[in-house]
Amino acid sequence: MPELRQDPVAGRWVIVATERTRRPKDFSGHHEHFSEPPVNPFAEGKEELTPPEIYAIREPGSKPNGPGWKVRVVPNKYPVLRIEGSLEKEGDGLYDHISGIGAHEVVIETPNYNVQLEEQPLEGVASVVETYRIRMTDLLKDTRFRYIIVFKNFGRDAGATLGHPHSQIIAMPVTPKAVKTKLTGALQYYEHKERNIFSDILRQELKDSRRIVYQNGAFVCFCPYASRFPFELCIMPRRQLPDFHKIDSSEVLQLADVMKVSLMKLRRGLNQPQYNYLIHTAPARYPKKDYWSTIEQDYRWHLEITPRLTHIAGFEVGTGFYVNPVPPEDAAHFLRDVEV
Amino acid sequence: MPELRQDPVAGRWVIVATERTRRPKDFSGHHEHFSEPPVNPFAEGKEELTPPEIYAIREPGSKPNGPGWKVRVVPNKYPVLRIEGSLEKEGDGLYDHISGIGAHEVVIETPNYNVQLEEQPLEGVASVVETYRIRMTDLLKDTRFRYIIVFKNFGRDAGATLGHPHSQIIAMPVTPKAVKTKLTGALQYYEHKERNIFSDILRQELKDSRRIVYQNGAFVCFCPYASRFPFELCIMPRRQLPDFHKIDSSEVLQLADVMKVSLMKLRRGLNQPQYNYLIHTAPARYPKKDYWSTIEQDYRWHLEITPRLTHIAGFEVGTGFYVNPVPPEDAAHFLRDVEV
Repeated sequence: MPELRQDPVAGRWVIVATERTRRPKDFSGHHEHFSEPPVNPFAEGKEELTPPEIYAIREPGSKPNGPGWKVRVVPNKYPVLRIEGSLEKEGDGLYDHISGIGAHEVVIETPNYNVQLEEQPLEGVASVVETYRIRMTDLLKDTRFRYIIVFKNFGRDAGATLGHPHSQIIAMPVTPKAVKTKLTGALQYYEHKERNIFSDILRQELKDSRRIVYQNGAFVCFCPYASRFPFELCIMPRRQLPDFHKIDSSEVLQLADVMKVSLMKLRRGLNQPQYNYLIHTAPARYPKKDYWSTIEQDYRWHLEITPRLTHIAGFEVGTGFYVNPVPPEDAAHFLRDVEV
Repeated sequence: MPELRQDPVAGRWVIVATERTRRPKDFSGHHEHFSEPPVNPFAEGKEELTPPEIYAIREPGSKPNGPGWKVRVVPNKYPVLRIEGSLEKEGDGLYDHISGIGAHEVVIETPNYNVQLEEQPLEGVASVVETYRIRMTDLLKDTRFRYIIVFKNFGRDAGATLGHPHSQIIAMPVTPKAVKTKLTGALQYYEHKERNIFSDILRQELKDSRRIVYQNGAFVCFCPYASRFPFELCIMPRRQLPDFHKIDSSEVLQLADVMKVSLMKLRRGLNQPQYNYLIHTAPARYPKKDYWSTIEQDYRWHLEITPRLTHIAGFEVGTGFYVNPVPPEDAAHFLRDVEV
């Protein structure tokens, strides 16, 4: 059983695989040498190579765990958290740990190995977004879960181990420290100014315009003022809404549009860089906490896209203090001009 | 002039190079392709290739900026912050930025390209540690600086761009958010329990013993309970002291010993992995802040060593939530048994 452990000083949680999924000697030879399996487990017609599907968008008449799907969600075969079991919180002297209860799902974005997300037609991207929404809505019914992370790793340096286009969902029994920090920041701004910080950011970005990359009726894509990485992008909804899973069907389509355009600009402008994206959404709302009293007004979900063009240095991980060699104004100017 | 910018929601600072040191088109071809310069600028006899030295440990009679040194500190030729200028804090709508004032120094650890830190004799490692101490003490006299980071990147994936053994020092006009989080955590524990959290951690680790890797009279090296990375190490002093630069000469020698042993265990056990280390020390103590009232009692400097054996996934950077595939108990057991 994996275990969630909390750092007693910094307060952050980590998942520790206590099942010895990787033994020390695995690291003593070549470092993290992954190779693609001989048969692609995400291919259409090879559905038996994954655990049974949780959800799929399928052609009428096609059967679960057979061919005929457009998007398919399956449990991760090597999950970082386990769905079975009860949530046990325990102390160990001054340390705290929680049983590694959670869900770890894979969203197979297309049956086509060679079609990346941004290359799909708009409806294809919208199906992936709608799948995120449906799975998040469903996972939030499990009261053991506090936070759902939807993310994508594209490329090996970005953490992907399989080449077939896919993204991932992790449901976890704690809220990550960095999420709490954002929630607290948004709450403090709201208490101080009685205004929503995300709305103020959007207003200032649109007025300034130097960091805007693309916009449509529902979303604005811009390079954040304090970007940690070259060509970092933030996709911010115009509508005030803390929870990603409450977007409506028109927002699903428009989010698909802004994601497709943004990712295609990165691909064309920067020679198909490796990247990650991550949906920042509000936590589940069970035990009453201070920062949930005004969350409907003060917090807004958003999507962060971070190309992996530079190495992350040790002091950046250790201090959270990043050095970005490309001003976001230059990055946005460059990306605005990339035709898609 | 580089610029420090603060994220308005998360509160973290980033350094943005506004001098266009890297243009967008630099990223559109090969991604971060560095090659070593044809002549090693850190070699003995090539001192004219670096800016004039700030400090050096030299043979008697040898002249500055010539051969005859053991450790040499020079300004970084491509600094992320600039030493010249005054500290200007400014708002830009809801954003805050500060002029990129700071210092960025390189500690050349040895004249020998092929001798890594852990391969040096004990006195050589001690000279490097003593150099860190002397430079930090000196930089703290500049009242523009709030925090000094001492760190080392070994290997290209860890952020190093030159192969000659070196470490780096950055003096910055703000305290990194992650440092503040640790300070706050330590303060809260102290206020709640009237005990030092680092002292309690050390007591529990020594009693438990499963995560201990090595110890001497002044330091304990262990795999932290909530390790983010496989084989992550923490070197903790036994003596309560918030500031690294106040270690005494016996601690310099004993720190050199524990660093040499720990790094050699990583090297032999894990086939010379890439790694980073970072000294966590207390901030400079000018403007009075709440968390400085009891800092002498509640905070303790320490050194973090993080081997880079796995890729850092995007959601880990975005949420601060790491997945560690090797339990620290197993990592420590493995490293204890590596003979050095």
